[in-house]
This record gives sequence, structure tokens and C-alpha cells, in this order.
Amino acid sequence: MENTLKRFTVNGGFFGRYQQLAKDTIIPHQEKAIKDELAGAEKSHAVENFRHAAEVIKTGKCSGEFYGMVFQDSDVAKWLEAAAYSLALFPDSELEKRCDEVIDLIAEAQHDDGYLNTYFTVKAPEKRWTNLAEAHELYCAGHMMEAAVAYAQCTGKTKLLDIMERMTAHIYKRFVTDGAEGYPGHPEIELALMRMYKCTGDKKHLELAGHFINVRGVNPHYFGEECKKRDWQVWGLDCGDTEYAQNNAPVRELEKATGHSVRAVYLYAGMADYAAVTGDESLVKACETLWCNIVQKRMYVTGAIGSAYEGEAFTADYHLPNDTAYAETCASIGLIFFARKMLDLQKRGEYADIMERALYNCVLAGMELDGTKFFYVNPLEVLPGISGMTKTHWHAKPERPSWFVCACCPPNVARLLTSIGEYAWSLEEKEDVIYSHLFINGELDGKIAVETNFPFDGKVTYKFKQAVNQMLAIRLPFWSENTQISCEYEAKDGYAYIKGAFAEGDVITVDFDMSVKRIYADSNVSANNGKVAFSRGALIYCAEGVDNGGEILNLAVKKNGAVSIEDNNLKAEGFRLKNNGDLYSFNSPEAEPCTIKLVPYYTWGNRGLNQMRVWIPEN
Amino acid sequence: MENTLKRFTVNGGFFGRYQQLAKDTIIPHQEKAIKDELAGAEKSHAVENFRHAAEVIKTGKCSGEFYGMVFQDSDVAKWLEAAAYSLALFPDSELEKRCDEVIDLIAEAQHDDGYLNTYFTVKAPEKRWTNLAEAHELYCAGHMMEAAVAYAQCTGKTKLLDIMERMTAHIYKRFVTDGAEGYPGHPEIELALMRMYKCTGDKKHLELAGHFINVRGVNPHYFGEECKKRDWQVWGLDCGDTEYAQNNAPVRELEKATGHSVRAVYLYAGMADYAAVTGDESLVKACETLWCNIVQKRMYVTGAIGSAYEGEAFTADYHLPNDTAYAETCASIGLIFFARKMLDLQKRGEYADIMERALYNCVLAGMELDGTKFFYVNPLEVLPGISGMTKTHWHAKPERPSWFVCACCPPNVARLLTSIGEYAWSLEEKEDVIYSHLFINGELDGKIAVETNFPFDGKVTYKFKQAVNQMLAIRLPFWSENTQISCEYEAKDGYAYIKGAFAEGDVITVDFDMSVKRIYADSNVSANNGKVAFSRGALIYCAEGVDNGGEILNLAVKKNGAVSIEDNNLKAEGFRLKNNGDLYSFNSPEAEPCTIKLVPYYTWGNRGLNQMRVWIPEN
Repeated sequence: MENTLKRFTVNGGFFGRYQQLAKDTIIPHQEKAIKDELAGAEKSHAVENFRHAAEVIKTGKCSGEFYGMVFQDSDVAKWLEAAAYSLALFPDSELEKRCDEVIDLIAEAQHDDGYLNTYFTVKAPEKRWTNLAEAHELYCAGHMMEAAVAYAQCTGKTKLLDIMERMTAHIYKRFVTDGAEGYPGHPEIELALMRMYKCTGDKKHLELAGHFINVRGVNPHYFGEECKKRDWQVWGLDCGDTEYAQNNAPVRELEKATGHSVRAVYLYAGMADYAAVTGDESLVKACETLWCNIVQKRMYVTGAIGSAYEGEAFTADYHLPNDTAYAETCASIGLIFFARKMLDLQKRGEYADIMERALYNCVLAGMELDGTKFFYVNPLEVLPGISGMTKTHWHAKPERPSWFVCACCPPNVARLLTSIGEYAWSLEEKEDVIYSHLFINGELDGKIAVETNFPFDGKVTYKFKQAVNQMLAIRLPFWSENTQISCEYEAKDGYAYIKGAFAEGDVITVDFDMSVKRIYADSNVSANNGKVAFSRGALIYCAEGVDNGGEILNLAVKKNGAVSIEDNNLKAEGFRLKNNGDLYSFNSPEAEPCTIKLVPYYTWGNRGLNQMRVWIPEN
Repeated sequence: MENTLKRFTVNGGFFGRYQQLAKDTIIPHQEKAIKDELAGAEKSHAVENFRHAAEVIKTGKCSGEFYGMVFQDSDVAKWLEAAAYSLALFPDSELEKRCDEVIDLIAEAQHDDGYLNTYFTVKAPEKRWTNLAEAHELYCAGHMMEAAVAYAQCTGKTKLLDIMERMTAHIYKRFVTDGAEGYPGHPEIELALMRMYKCTGDKKHLELAGHFINVRGVNPHYFGEECKKRDWQVWGLDCGDTEYAQNNAPVRELEKATGHSVRAVYLYAGMADYAAVTGDESLVKACETLWCNIVQKRMYVTGAIGSAYEGEAFTADYHLPNDTAYAETCASIGLIFFARKMLDLQKRGEYADIMERALYNCVLAGMELDGTKFFYVNPLEVLPGISGMTKTHWHAKPERPSWFVCACCPPNVARLLTSIGEYAWSLEEKEDVIYSHLFINGELDGKIAVETNFPFDGKVTYKFKQAVNQMLAIRLPFWSENTQISCEYEAKDGYAYIKGAFAEGDVITVDFDMSVKRIYADSNVSANNGKVAFSRGALIYCAEGVDNGGEILNLAVKKNGAVSIEDNNLKAEGFRLKNNGDLYSFNSPEAEPCTIKLVPYYTWGNRGLNQMRVWIPEN
């Protein structure tokens, strides 16, 4: 059983606070939500749906009704997964007991044939598997598999894993043994099956993951054909839009990241994981192609992806509007999954660079600093009066809403934060190398302790708490042009390789170059022409109205001007342009010198309604 | 009968060519379209619908079906109106005969009670007046009234006018005499009834125009209530969105131009006309408020309006995205109508300034130079690969399509071009002033001949062909900072007032300042921060790929650089930025000096698929 969850621990520092927040606030808050105990919030019914399904299994009838999204089950799964990680970090017998109770309920909701999905059990038992395009059956199964693996690895309890092995057997029988056509409308099960395989060693899980990857898009018209056969729909999705769900071509022929961006990166993560395990070269190549397309042409500087609300989707190369971005929190989490799996394939620092960028910027911005409110959509420019108001910007809210009808992002953030150690490290036991991808306070396996004030400070100390015979590879991030390491190393593909053996008490000190950088976008990104963004280390910065006299659209950064650092914020020399009251004027606006204050993007929107922008004109 | 149509004539020059094009190409092309004689194009059925309706009137049955948009009748009306103006310019007995035949058919399609609308007569006779929100009955009636007035004034034939007087009586009976609730979903009839009133002198027409203006929005829920009562729909319009059709409040309380932009400016034009005739001060004030909101906060520099595809609508103050603009040709035509009526209210040059801007830029750009293809949507930035391709930019085509399912814009351009004299001049006989608003080659009433190469040259000559005792007021356009006039004048509210009496043979020469201007947008227009646009006289310029090595996004204009004029195009000093292949780079891109060629915006998109932008970064 691959299980590093208890081996990578976080102690204090930047992510220690977030993990504490997850334990104290995020996970309890979400537990209340899925159990309909949140005062003032819309009912979730996610747990109640399982209660209804259990009644159906027991009595054949149901006294209540299914309620919520067709994928409501996944909210329970994601909460269980986050709770499992939290239990590994912070043992809590009360929480564990409540998790066990939810799992008991899930067990009761499972059919004798292994099938598990409350929407169909309660609402439409005769419609099972007739709407793969919209109904998220395989997606919900995937999330519950992830929860099952996490819960087994973190608590040692395998009841949920057993449940999901039976569900997996059910799916295997249908799609492999019995040869039913089809593939998931929303990819997720591919990466989940890989986790099942790694956890159980059951090759059928690997085979099923490969099946869904390999059949996808071979018949690009599957969803359209399915649509003609059924007399019901969930949302009336356009099943002819094959790019939306990445079934326009067999996965190995995909050249561009298209369609619904969460679907896309979940699929690519599963593909990369499958390729890493099987060594499937054509799949590796497809993953590289899709990765390059995203990070070279379709990604925001914050690590966000998905340029359009329409379809929550990728649009076209270099189309990266700041104000109408979709930039869903879940999509950046999916990009992190994809990056992490690419790291399993190839130890190249660029994957970890992007993982870091998406994590410290888009994903963290998705959550209010106090952990109670969340953004789906993470625009790079927000203008009260337009953002969240006009039909073009309805999705791009200027403040985090306190509730969600569709609750996909909050538990996704929770499970990422509570398992962040998995992203910080890789252990390549065969190759005798320990990889340090992210610079997070904590310990690896009781062997190496990392101390740092990253992302605010560039100093990272690796202390050996016992003798280590492996090599240590520390990422050399792209933003650090001058990294100082206290020992000899060989730089390769974005990592500093330091030879062991290390003795107990050895210390390696790394000093990253944390100078402020100006970022320029390729001129094909029309929205950023003439503009500059700022970063320092992993953090992207933005200007908010609250720090800049309320108005920021009339600010321009001075070309080659000074930028200073103050309390982890930036102060840049700039100009404030003076409007003359005319919408269009023949006179160049007067420019008064001023100081522009910039704050880390992940902190924006925590001090009331105000303007925000990442890309600022440079003059 | 107010009839200046034959008194303001155009001879040669810029608009002479366009009027000839209307006669030779646009009107014949559209005649073929509405008569289903256009090879390769989708059937219009607009005339055929009248044939079907006539059959219903005659026999009570119909052998065919209604086809097309619910407002298909208006295509026939707008064509007839344009044909009428063309007959005034270019007498053509064949065309007139064909028009008469269409009018005969219209007469046969009218019910005994005066009702005229082929959609309802053929398709849904029992549903008359049950869906004012969507079904365009009053809109179609309005357009046919305009055609009737134009045809009477240009040919002296009153058959269509008689038809529309009977339809007007029908509407008057329903909404005034019988007191039926409701107002048009798409305003148009208000301005049309004003034309009917001025043409016939029948006060009931004035009263009915006032009725529709006065009841609008008093019950803002009318469309919602109507929706609940009916069991059918055209498109399923959201009848709760009261801003969409400007019925959110009584018209005198409207403070912002909202909703569907064509609906908005048609309504405001009717309001201004009614206010000019009745002297209704509160309505004048409302028109001024709405005018200011548009031109000071919601108008593109090309005179385009409507920032969003969603609802073809105004969005919010200062929200003027260049690439996703809706900027419908018809909306700018409506803005010209509104401006023209504001000029009837108040002789202020600013109204004519905007009329000129919308005409020479957005409206003319709406048509291919050869008159055969049309844009609905007139964006200020076009990027092949994104524009017309992604879901966000589907509406913003990079090339003019050769056909339209909804054919509203082409005949609107035709009727504007063929009646352009009406916009060039005002005769205020009581006040003894002749106003010259636009600088168009032609003659006023056989008295004054205007000669000019405007918009390419700033010299305009007024030659008196007979003695004139009135004062002549020549507009002093806002873009001419230094206007030379060959005689004494008094400047007031944007006009140069020149005292008569003028003798036969007198000549006044005006020289406008045609220097190239840089335009800066108010910084609240986020899309234009750090950018500049260029104008010369009435013309706004743009850069196209075809003139600039294919790529224009990497161009920046040099601040205070030189700009020269060459063949009516501009050549501006600038820089070409060199991308280094990275989506995001820490290095400011190298800038090579270059010359940027700019062409008049109205000519863009006539030389194949390429990039275009009006607002260019300044460096």
C-alpha cells in the first residue's frame, strides 16, 4: 500500500496555519453543510440523500426525495477525504466516529450488485448508466474511491475501501466484462482508479483506469448517440460539443486543452498517472503536449485556467481576459493534480513551478483568509459595478459568497490543504532520491525537518534528524535567478541534486532570490498589452482599491521605477492619471507621481468590496 | 405635410457614391432577398408571408406557412422605405411599379378591422396582442408606418399611408379607446407615429405616440403579468428583466440607458420627437439625462453602443470592452435617430458631433465597401482564432457574413444612406435659420450648393444659387480646434451663425482643422488603459494586420511620436515588441522602432481575414 500521508507532516508556518484552519473551521463548517446543520444556508441534503438511498435498499421505498445536484454524493466524498487527511494530522476520535457513521450509512446505501449512487437509487433506479454525459455517476464513484483510499490510509479502516472495491467491480463488469460502450462525462474516475490500484494492488483497477482513458473519444459521438436514446436530461448539455468533455478525439491525439477546464485537467492527471505506472510512451507524449498547451498558451499568471464562463472552459490560445476569466478554484486544483502526476513521470522543476504558482495564488485566493467563504471564479481584475453585476460578469463576483448551491470548490480546497505534504515531496525509493518540490515547514518521515518562512522569506533550512543515505534534490524555482545553497550540488532540470550520505545533525541552507520581478505577458495576450504584473518568489501581487485611494484604474507603474517591500507587500513607483471628465479626450491625461501599493493576490478581497487588478499599465 | 426629402439632395462625393451603391446594389440585393430570389441564401419569405396572409383574408385558409422571424414583416417595410428614398433620388418607374405591387399585396393582407401582421394572420390569428413583450406587432406596425410616410412623401402615392392610417386607428381603438393595458416590447412605433402625425396632421397619431411613451414602465410588471396569462412564447424572453426593454420605470424617471440598445435608442428618439413637438419639459429632461449617460459613459469611440452580446445590450457605465462589444449597426443608426431628434429639440453641435461619429465610423463599417455584406456587430478589436470562434466571441465576426437569418441591419443602413440629406440639414423656418449639421456634397432646396471632399478634406464651400434671406448656421465640430470661415460669424453651442441676406453667387468657404488627434479614454474604461486611438476629422482609425506585417498586438505607438497622412491613411511612429516565446517573462520585451499604418475604421475588414484594433498601447 503506497501511503506517504503520515510520512509528510507540516509543522507551523504558512501551511501549518492553513491546516489548523482546515481542522478548526473548514472541515467542521462543511460537515455542518452536508448534514444540513448550517443556519441560514441552503440545505445540502448530501448526507440525507444517503439516508434516503439506504431506506430504498432496505424497504424498496423512500419516504423522502433526492435533493441537490446530480453529483451531490461527491460533496460527502470530498468531505470524508479531507476529514481523513485531517485525522492523520490531528487525531480526533469524535470526528473519526462521525466519519465512521457516515461510512456506515454509505454502506447501507449500496446495492447488492455493488452499485452506489443516491441520485439514481432514490430518484431514477431504472435510468442507471443511461446518461454518462451529464449524470456524473462515474465522477461520484471516483470521488468516493478517493475518499475510501484516503480513509484507509489515514485511519487504517477499510470499510469504505471495501464498499468502493465492490462498486469498482460493478463498473468493471459493466464496461469491461460486459463491454458496455461509454466513458465518463466528467473525468475523475481515471485518477481515482489509479489511487485504488496503488492502494489495493488490484490490477483490475489499473485496467479499468486504462479502459476509460483508452476508449475516450474513440467514438466522439458517443454522448450524442446516448442522448438520442434517452428520454431524460439533467441540464440539456449540448452533446454535440465534443471538445467540452474532451471526447473530440482519442486522448493520445489531443493537441489542445479544450472544454470544461476541471474535466480537462482531471482527465490529464489520470492519464499522466496511468502513463507513469505503465510507461505508455504515446500517453506520456499526449500529456506533455497538453501540459505545454496549457502553461505556454492558456494559463493565467496566477496559475488559473479556464478563460470563459461559457462552459467553464478553455477558449483559445492566448485568450486570457482578466475580468471575465472563469479561473475556477477547482480547475487550478486539478492543474496541481496534473502537475504532481507529471512530476511522477518526469522530475522537471517546471511542473513543480506551476504547482506552486497555482497553489499560492489562484487556489488560496479561492478562500477567504478566515476559511469561511469561497470563490469559484478567480478573476485577475475586479470592478465593483461591473464584476458580479452585468450579464457578462455575473460569474466573476467581487466578494466571496457565503454559500453555494454547487459546493464543489470548498471541499476541494480542504482536501488539498490537508494533504499538502503529498505535493511538497516525492520519494523515489528505487532511485534513492528525495525530492523537495515545495518549501513547506514540516518533516519528511521523521528524517528531515524543513524550517522556513516561505513564501515571505527565501531562506529554507533542511535539518537531518537522522542519517539519510538518499540523495536530496531541492527544486530551483524559475523565479529565483540566484539561489545560494550551503553545500555542493549539481543542477539538473530545475533541481539541485545534493549527494548523501547525510548524518544526523547535518544542515543544508538554501537562500532563494526573493527580489521583486516584473512580469510581461506575450503580446498575443491582448488583455495584457502594455501592462506589467509583479511577483516575489511564489507570490503574484495585485493592487486593491482599499490600499490605493479607492481608484486603481487610473494608476500606471513607472517603467524601471523603484519597488520596495514592506510587510510582505510591495510599494511601486507609479503615476496617477487625472481624468478630465470626458469619456474621450484629445489631451493625454496629466500624470502625478504616486506610490502604488500591491498585496499578494491570495489575500485580495478580504477587506470589503473594492477594485482589484493584477496587470497594471506601465508607463 | 412636412416633406424635406426632395429638398435635401446629395450630389457626388462621399455619400453620392453610397447613394449610388444603395440604388445599384443594396436595394436590388435586398429586394431579391425579401422575394426569395437570392441564389444560395436562406429563404426570407418576407414577401411570401404577405401573400399567405392575403390568401387568409380572401379565403379564410392558407395553403402555406408563415416563415421567418416574428418581425419578418419589418424587412419588407424597411426595404420599401429605402426604395422610396431611392425613388426620390433616382426616379425609376420599374422599381416604383414593383413597390406598388408589394403595397397592393400588403393591402390584401390587411383585415377589415385594419389589423396588419402576417405572423398573426397566418400563424396565430387568435393570439393577436397577447405577447407584446416578444411578438413585435407594434414594432412591425411602426416600420410599416415609416415606409408609408416615406413612400407618400417620395412618390406622392398614399395607398400604403391609407393602410397604415387604418392600422393606426385599430391600435388607437385597442389601447386608447378601449383602454387595453400594455406597451411595445420593442419600441419603434413611437417615432413612427410621430412621422405619421407630421405627415398627416392627425392628432390621434400624436396622442397615440404619447400614450405609448407615457404608459411605458408605469406598470413595470406588465410583461411578466402578460407572460403568466399566455400559453405560448416566441423565444422565452425573461419578462422579469425590465431593464431589457426599458420598462423598469416610467420613461421620465429613467436615468441610465439600459437593456437592448436598439430598443433603447428607438424609444429615446421617439421621446425626443414627442417632446420637441409638445414642449413637454419633463420629457426633454429625461432625454437629456439618457443622452448624457450614453455619450459620457456608455458609447464606444466609434459611436457604437451596446457593450454585450447578452441581451444585445448596454451593461454598466464605462464598461466598453473592445473585442466582445456588441456594437450593433442598428443601434448606432438608432443613436443617429436620437441625435437628430435632439437637434430638433436643441440646436447644440454635440448632437450632430455624435451623429457624425456614429455615421462615419460604426454605421459605415457595418457594410462591406461594395455594399453586399454586412456586420451586425462592430467590435473595436478583432483577433482571428478568437473573434467569431470562441463562445465568448461568437457574435463578433472577423469578416462580414454574406447572409443573415435576422436581416435587420442591412435595410436599416440602406434607408439611412438614401435619406442622409435629412440628417445633414435642418430648416427652422420660424427662426429663419438654415442649419448645416453634416458636410455632405449636395444642395439644399436648390438654394445652397455644398462642395467638399469631406471626410478626407476639411474644406467645405457653400455656394448660394439664389438669394437667401435666412441665417446660415454651420456646425463647428468638436474635433476642429481651429476652424477658418471666410466671413464673419457668431459661435454659439457648436454652430457658427452667419447672418444673411445672401445674394445669388455668394460663396462661404469653411476650412476645418483636419490635424490628426490622439484620443485618450477616461481611465474608468479599463479596456483602454494605457492605450490611444487616432482620429482625423470625423474618422476614427484602426490598425489592420494586412498593413502591419500580419501582427498588430505587438505594436505600441510612440508617445509624442510623429504621425503623417498618406492617401487618407495614417502612418504613426511606433515600436514592435519582440516576444521571447514565453507566455510570461521577467524581461521587458525588446522594442524595435517601426511605422504603424492606420486606416479609417469604416474601411476595415475589406481585405481578407486579419487582426484589427482601434485602441493601441502607447509607449
